[in-house]
Amino acid sequence: MHEPSRLAIADRYAKTNRKMNAFVERHALVIEGAEVLANSAGLAPGERISVNNSVLFLLPGPPREFVAVLDEHVLPWLRANRTGPVPEIRLFQVCGIGESDIVSRLEPEGFPGPGVDVSYCAAIGRVEIRLFAPAANAAQLDKAARLVREKIAGSIYDEGSRDLAEVVGQLLRERKATLAVAESCTGGLVGHRITGVAGSSYYFKGGVIAYADEVKERDLGVSAEDLKNHGAVSEAIAKQMAEGVRRRFGTTFGLAVTGIAGPGGGSNEKPVGLVYIAVADAKGCVAKQSRFAGSRDNIKDWGSQVALDQLRLRLLDGI
Amino acid sequence: MHEPSRLAIADRYAKTNRKMNAFVERHALVIEGAEVLANSAGLAPGERISVNNSVLFLLPGPPREFVAVLDEHVLPWLRANRTGPVPEIRLFQVCGIGESDIVSRLEPEGFPGPGVDVSYCAAIGRVEIRLFAPAANAAQLDKAARLVREKIAGSIYDEGSRDLAEVVGQLLRERKATLAVAESCTGGLVGHRITGVAGSSYYFKGGVIAYADEVKERDLGVSAEDLKNHGAVSEAIAKQMAEGVRRRFGTTFGLAVTGIAGPGGGSNEKPVGLVYIAVADAKGCVAKQSRFAGSRDNIKDWGSQVALDQLRLRLLDGI
Repeated sequence: MHEPSRLAIADRYAKTNRKMNAFVERHALVIEGAEVLANSAGLAPGERISVNNSVLFLLPGPPREFVAVLDEHVLPWLRANRTGPVPEIRLFQVCGIGESDIVSRLEPEGFPGPGVDVSYCAAIGRVEIRLFAPAANAAQLDKAARLVREKIAGSIYDEGSRDLAEVVGQLLRERKATLAVAESCTGGLVGHRITGVAGSSYYFKGGVIAYADEVKERDLGVSAEDLKNHGAVSEAIAKQMAEGVRRRFGTTFGLAVTGIAGPGGGSNEKPVGLVYIAVADAKGCVAKQSRFAGSRDNIKDWGSQVALDQLRLRLLDGI
Repeated sequence: MHEPSRLAIADRYAKTNRKMNAFVERHALVIEGAEVLANSAGLAPGERISVNNSVLFLLPGPPREFVAVLDEHVLPWLRANRTGPVPEIRLFQVCGIGESDIVSRLEPEGFPGPGVDVSYCAAIGRVEIRLFAPAANAAQLDKAARLVREKIAGSIYDEGSRDLAEVVGQLLRERKATLAVAESCTGGLVGHRITGVAGSSYYFKGGVIAYADEVKERDLGVSAEDLKNHGAVSEAIAKQMAEGVRRRFGTTFGLAVTGIAGPGGGSNEKPVGLVYIAVADAKGCVAKQSRFAGSRDNIKDWGSQVALDQLRLRLLDGI
């Protein structure tokens, strides 16, 4: 039993008015001779053990505890004990064009060039481009990075690891602009992502989850006739939703998403994955059509990502 | 180049009006002698290779493609080629009590008993209990499962792997009930989870993301005086939000969440992680206070989980 860990657990339990029992105490058991790594996010501490010429790390299993001990103890130790050259990294996050399009724009230019490595990681509505090289090749690395910026300019939303909602949040804040959302197929996901950013209450007023058509009419002022003529998944309705929520909430921007997330509800004319996204501001309202592939979750994720990116591009255009 | 894979990729590109290039074609390259496993979710197929007495599977890296090839090819192959006894499994998903409380209720009863193994997996607002035993010990396994049901009765929301939103959705559908949500600190996450379930439009009308206090007043009819006296994070406001959204949307149930997701905005009296959740129906309105620990994301996740569970328990009470 590692006494400081036992006390940390006891303290954690006391703070949330829970009773510590024998099962909980067991979490403080560690291997003899191990260096104990405090777990700021949970019960069982991490451990570092030296065996012959190797160093073993034991980490707690729950993901957020794993990450906490990794960030607070393992990575700092690795940095302090690293030998050999440290690679330089350039990171780009891209929305709006796919991995294969990125490659076909860059490779004919001799990208990434001698002494520089590149890796691509494609996720829903997002591609991460990672360039890395030994510090000695920093000049070539910067050349490759410049090529990325030149060839896929407006589609890069961050040269780091920020979520798109954080990028959009910073732009809104810098411009002292406010936002309200009107969500149909995303069902609240856009609002969830925006409010995932600390301080989002400075620019985010809220929104309407307009899942049923009657809500689109009543709370967003969407025309019953247009709903009948164009259907809820249409450019006309997306625009009226964005304008309606902007008007109702009195915000600088209104952002709206309407689409068919599936698996049911699609037709030949309006297939699953068809999504309209609109951004309204004082200058007017622009809607775009997208076609996403995959599961219901994928389509919702993708819709929220493209919606945020559409707002980002609108913000960069100037308000 | 594996020709059927190349054709599948070409077909995928044609369907979404994209041009296939040399980089894309490369995804159809496979190892000589490999059995090719079609990838229904992306470009590069999986592969199965027999080497000496071993079988190797190569899977695509993107998570949804990995899962697709795993589900469609790897698991069926493993099932078909398995030798030896197949373990029986009993699965329980629990919300409302923690892992250590579960253990301290079960272990004094001799749980899980001879010949039965148990594993616990704790996530945000959820603990999974997995019992497993050789088929020969099915009687002991059932005995252990009965003990789980007896000791933690109402906190089990599924004996399978369904998300809580799906469980709640089924209950709403069975009762022909409808739902609207009013979300402050969760910012749309509850709506997002509910609409993650196919067919949720049968019972979910929508909701209000009432992030700013003015929205709580205007769209949910929350009292300005109560906001001033009790603060937005209070039992009184949670109740008025649930009642307000139910009234506005004309639904069987109104579900509301208000809290402090942090990292800022906390005080001694109202610390980060304090969340009030209220359920309103024709019989009245009940609010509960919770205290969650962890990051902003954790608190939002936890709030959405407990909100859905509070609605589940209300649904089981009868309407």
